[in-house]
Formats: sequence, C-alpha cells, structure tokens
Amino acid sequence: MAKVAIVYHSGYGHTARLAQAVARGAESVAGTHVTLVSVTDVEQHWADLDAADAIVFGAPTYMGSASAPFKAFADASSKRWFVHAWKDKLAAGFSNSGSPAGDKLATLQEFAVLAAQHGMIWVGLGLHPIVPSTKHPGEFVNRAGAFLGATAQSPHSAPDHLAPPPVDLETGEILGARVANAAARWVRGK
Amino acid sequence: MAKVAIVYHSGYGHTARLAQAVARGAESVAGTHVTLVSVTDVEQHWADLDAADAIVFGAPTYMGSASAPFKAFADASSKRWFVHAWKDKLAAGFSNSGSPAGDKLATLQEFAVLAAQHGMIWVGLGLHPIVPSTKHPGEFVNRAGAFLGATAQSPHSAPDHLAPPPVDLETGEILGARVANAAARWVRGK
Amino acid sequence: MAKVAIVYHSGYGHTARLAQAVARGAESVAGTHVTLVSVTDVEQHWADLDAADAIVFGAPTYMGSASAPFKAFADASSKRWFVHAWKDKLAAGFSNSGSPAGDKLATLQEFAVLAAQHGMIWVGLGLHPIVPSTKHPGEFVNRAGAFLGATAQSPHSAPDHLAPPPVDLETGEILGARVANAAARWVRGK
Amino acid sequence: MAKVAIVYHSGYGHTARLAQAVARGAESVAGTHVTLVSVTDVEQHWADLDAADAIVFGAPTYMGSASAPFKAFADASSKRWFVHAWKDKLAAGFSNSGSPAGDKLATLQEFAVLAAQHGMIWVGLGLHPIVPSTKHPGEFVNRAGAFLGATAQSPHSAPDHLAPPPVDLETGEILGARVANAAARWVRGK
Repeated sequence: MAKVAIVYHSGYGHTARLAQAVARGAESVAGTHVTLVSVTDVEQHWADLDAADAIVFGAPTYMGSASAPFKAFADASSKRWFVHAWKDKLAAGFSNSGSPAGDKLATLQEFAVLAAQHGMIWVGLGLHPIVPSTKHPGEFVNRAGAFLGATAQSPHSAPDHLAPPPVDLETGEILGARVANAAARWVRGK
Repeated sequence: MAKVAIVYHSGYGHTARLAQAVARGAESVAGTHVTLVSVTDVEQHWADLDAADAIVFGAPTYMGSASAPFKAFADASSKRWFVHAWKDKLAAGFSNSGSPAGDKLATLQEFAVLAAQHGMIWVGLGLHPIVPSTKHPGEFVNRAGAFLGATAQSPHSAPDHLAPPPVDLETGEILGARVANAAARWVRGK
Repeated sequence: MAKVAIVYHSGYGHTARLAQAVARGAESVAGTHVTLVSVTDVEQHWADLDAADAIVFGAPTYMGSASAPFKAFADASSKRWFVHAWKDKLAAGFSNSGSPAGDKLATLQEFAVLAAQHGMIWVGLGLHPIVPSTKHPGEFVNRAGAFLGATAQSPHSAPDHLAPPPVDLETGEILGARVANAAARWVRGK
Repeated sequence: MAKVAIVYHSGYGHTARLAQAVARGAESVAGTHVTLVSVTDVEQHWADLDAADAIVFGAPTYMGSASAPFKAFADASSKRWFVHAWKDKLAAGFSNSGSPAGDKLATLQEFAVLAAQHGMIWVGLGLHPIVPSTKHPGEFVNRAGAFLGATAQSPHSAPDHLAPPPVDLETGEILGARVANAAARWVRGK
C-alpha cells in the first residue's frame, strides 16, 4: 500500500479544488492512502508528510512563483532537509493561475528544485499536450501544454464553481493517479 | 536613431512569421532601423548584430528549450562574449510552439540567461495577460500569459496562414515596438 | 538624479551585508539617491519603491528559491502589478547561500520573472566569471560565475564578520554601481 | 538487471571524463548494464536508449544552456516523444563548465524539462552540499552545491588531466550509482 500526501496552499479556493482533484485521482488507485494537507494546517501534519511515499506540492502562481504561504512551508521543510528525512520519496506538483501559461512553469520548476534539494524523485504529468478528454467529449486535458506537473486556469471572470474548469480538474486527477501508481511501484521495488 | 536586430530560427515558418511581426512593430517606431536575420544566414550578419542597440532572440520551443539551430548561434556568440562585445545592448525574446504554454517560458528563461551572460539588459513584453486586442475586436493579445517575452501558438492542425493567429502576431508587434522605444531611450541617455 | 531602491530579506544578517554592499556601490555613482529597505519594514516604504527609477531585489536562497518573507513582499507587490505602477523601472537582484552555486540561479530567475511581470527591465551583473578583484589582490569577484545578478556565499562554518567574504561584497558593490549608472542613463534618455 | 544509458556531448573532453565517472558509478552497482553514448555517435545507439531503464543526460553549459550538439540530440528525440517511447524511464543529468556555478543549474533545469516532456521520472543528485569526500580526504563532493544533478568545474587554466578535478568526478560516480540503484528498484517494482 502506498501513501500519497498532497500539501498545498490556496488563496481563493481554486488551487484547493485542483488539490482535491489530485487526491481523487490518487484514491482511484486501489490500495492508496491519501492525505490532503493545507499548508495552513501543516503543523498538525508533518508526521503524515514524513510517513508518505510520495508528496505532491501545490500552490497558485502569484507574481511568477509559488505563493508566499506555500514558500513558508517549503522553508520550514528545511528541518527535514538537514537530516534528509524525505530522501528517495517521490514528488510531484501542480499550480493554478488566471491565464493559460501565466508563468506556472516557473512554479513547477521551483517545486522540482525543492524536491531535488530534499533528494526526492520527480514524477511529471506524463501526458502529451492537448489530449482529448475521456470525461468531457470535445474538450482536452493538459490543454495548456505542461509537462513537469499539472496546471489549471481560473480566469478572474469565471464563477467559482467553473474555475478551474472540469478538464483542468481531470488533468489533476490524471496526475494524482500517475503519482499513486508510481508510488506503489516504487514501494514494491524497495 | 536606434538599431534593432532580430535573430531567429524557424523550423516550419511559424516562428519566421512571428519574427516578421516583431520587425513590423519595431519599424512602426519612427527612426528605428531594423535588421531581420535568420540564424541560417548569420555568418553574413554578425556585423549587423554587433552594430545593433538591441538584439531580439527568437526560436521555436522544441522539447522544452530553444531549437538546436538557434542554440548553435548562441554557442557561436561566445566569440562576442569573450570580449563582452554585446555588453549593455538591450535584449528581448519570443517563442512559438504548438500549445498555449508548451514550456515556452523555459525558452524565454534561456534567452534571458544568454543575454545576462553577454551583459545585455532584458526588456520583457510589458503587457498584462489576456489584454483586449485593438486590431481584432473580441480577441486578446498576450492570451497565453507570458511576461519575459512574446509567445505564440501554432496548433499542428492549423493551416499555415493562420498559424500563429493574428492576435499572436499582434503580440509580437507590441514587443517589437516596445524594444524599439526602449532602444531609442537607451541611445538618447548615453 | 537617479533613485535606486534596494528591497531585501535577510534571515541571519548575511544578505543584509550584501544589500549594504549593493547600496554602497550605487552611492558611489555621483547623483544617485539610494534607499535600503528591509522587507520587514516595507509597509513604511512602498512610496520609496514607487518613486524609484530602479528596484534591486535581494533574498537568501532557502530550499532553492527566495526566502518566504521576500516572497510575501513579492506577492504584496501585486497591488502595483494590477496598475503597472512599476512598468519601465529598471530591476536587478542578488542572493546569498551557504554553497558556491546553491541553486541561487533559481532565485535570480524568480526575481527576473517577477520583474518581467511588473514590466520592469532587467539589469544583470555584467561581469565575466572569476575576475581579478581590484580591492583584494589575488582574489576574484563573481567567483561563483553568476550573470543574472550578484551572488554571495556564506559558509555555515564562517564567522559572521567574514560571511559573505569581502570579494562577494565587492561583487555586490559592482552590481550596485552598474544599476545606478544604468538608471542614470535610463532617466536621461526619457 | 537494470540498464543505464548515458548520452552526452563533450566539446573539449571535460564532460566526457565526467560521463565516464557517471558510468563507473553505475557499473559499481551489481547487475547494472551501462552504455555510454556520445551524441556524435547517437545514430548507432538509439536502440540502446530505447532499451534503457534510465537515461542520463550530460552536456557542457555553453552560454547558459546545454551545448548545441546536445540540443540537436534532444530535438531528434522528438521522434520518441511523439509515441512516448521513453515514458516512465528514469532520467538524470550532469554538466561541466569553467566556474563553480556558471549557470549549470539552467542546463540541469533544461534536462529536467526535457525528461518531463518525455514522461520520464527525474532522479536528482541526492547529496547535501559540500560533503566530505570518502576518496579524497580534506576535499568535498558536491562542492558547488547542486541538487537537480551532478556538476563539475573545469577551470580554463587547469591542465586537462586535472579538469574536472577528482572530487567532481567522484560526485559524478555518486550520481551514477544513485541512478543505477534507483533503476534496479524501479525495475523490480514493475
């Protein structure tokens, strides 16, 4: 059984919905135990992160990088870094912003470097760009074309229940399932 | 009078059209002398680059970074680097790929680092994301949301005369005009 | 007269010393007005940043990116972003960490993307790597080999008064002088 | 038994020596089959790359990114990308340049994005910075402080047989062993 933890910050609820989608995707893989942790509650959940086989990082992209509350969590993770407590865990990431690209790649690069500092192993999205959705005919997952992780777009004009849109949440589910499968394989191989 | 050189690689003609749009934008600024150089002809144009006040780099994003023919030009520019021949020139960049994001930010970062190695000064796009087009009502410039430079999307299914689409070429024109204005100001201030 | 503002976070005093070096370098250029702002005091200094011709960003690299207190400042700068209040100002950056490279490039890239989102124009370090120091014979400025900005190394074992070492502070001074000269030229050209 | 392929470009022999060190490290793990491929010979070795469980990318950093001959290989790998032939293989990377940092992080980021486009899984260096060497008392592996991959410094003034120096080759060996162990675990878990 593989343990997947998702640790995220959400400013207005959009990234939280994407985080829940990643969790649903991970839970869809039989035998996966999923923990969803907001960085605002992380003090109660460090043990969950320490016990996880894979940790997925999520944050909105603000001003071209991960939001400050997420960064505060990343800085606090230095206690784990000093003893390499997270070494050889899997890692992955996702980000939301208001435009299709919106420098979200910079946030995913930031997550990948954070993971590398911890000695973690990075699992990307694993999708081609603009792939027909299986759930929403005529629409596309990974519609922005991201590879290091899952990205979603929540336009400022969109009503909350449509932001991020269903295909972006489906993209998040695909990332969650991919991480859960990779974690199970990684645990089996130990 | 400011001299703007645009040096680009284009694999299938899409980036060439974007380069021409950047050139049109620069030429729209009175007193600007524009030189458009394909990297395949660069051996005849090093003197134009050396004489320029601003050099704009352009390439398609292939496999997550600037195309190899552009990189061959960048490597060849090391002769200028050794003597800091391009120090204090302005620099800017643009990229095209098949999806909205498509890791084009990575190519723009690569250009910005290349410029920094040369001691050049980087002029970004200067636009908010998803700004109403003045030329194409109901459409938007900088529709992908890029900031370090101009990006365009040429879907694999699009007919050539529509790829990149007019609003992405307009985004390129805006970058060209911005660079030309900045170069004129930079020259005046010397 | 050009106005240069330096806004920085320092966790243990090392980045503060580098910030002071950048300030000294800027002040060495006649006619430059320099304001040094810790992000912990930024609420009293937004008007100074708004009035500046150039803003220099500084932060330690923690876990592969700018420290969280700096990021909180960057996120708060979104009020300026919405109205493009800092558009066409110059920008630059510096970072300190415990090892020579230490992923400080990632922090400088983060600063450059932040500047691009604001529509600012990025001034890099403008030095070749490993250049003989004029102040400290036998030693070298830009000894790590950075280009997007100035970097310093403060080994964990070094006594505070030697971290960052004098040549890294000299590198910071060179960046400060370069930004001040560029700002004066940029102001003159307006 | 795990198969590790190392595909690299070397301009002057320094990166080749680092590649050989990575190969030695991988071969030190019992049951690993290692193939060392120069990009100049890659046309004869695509089948080796296709058969590998892990592919390690290596190139010198020229002008802030991977050398053009490596990039030509990366672009040519798009044939594999279209059919996701390398999906779920492990990936890793290394780079050499003349200064300690020298923007080698940008090359490692380029490799990590390339791997993500292929759907590969990224294995970083897994070392703290500035770790006492076991082979060279008083010296340090990962002396520059890199995390996404292994980096080496070959000063322009150094005689060839000392560039990169032994501790940087040891850092490469550690990366090779880490990738081989990860590949074996990944194969076992399938």
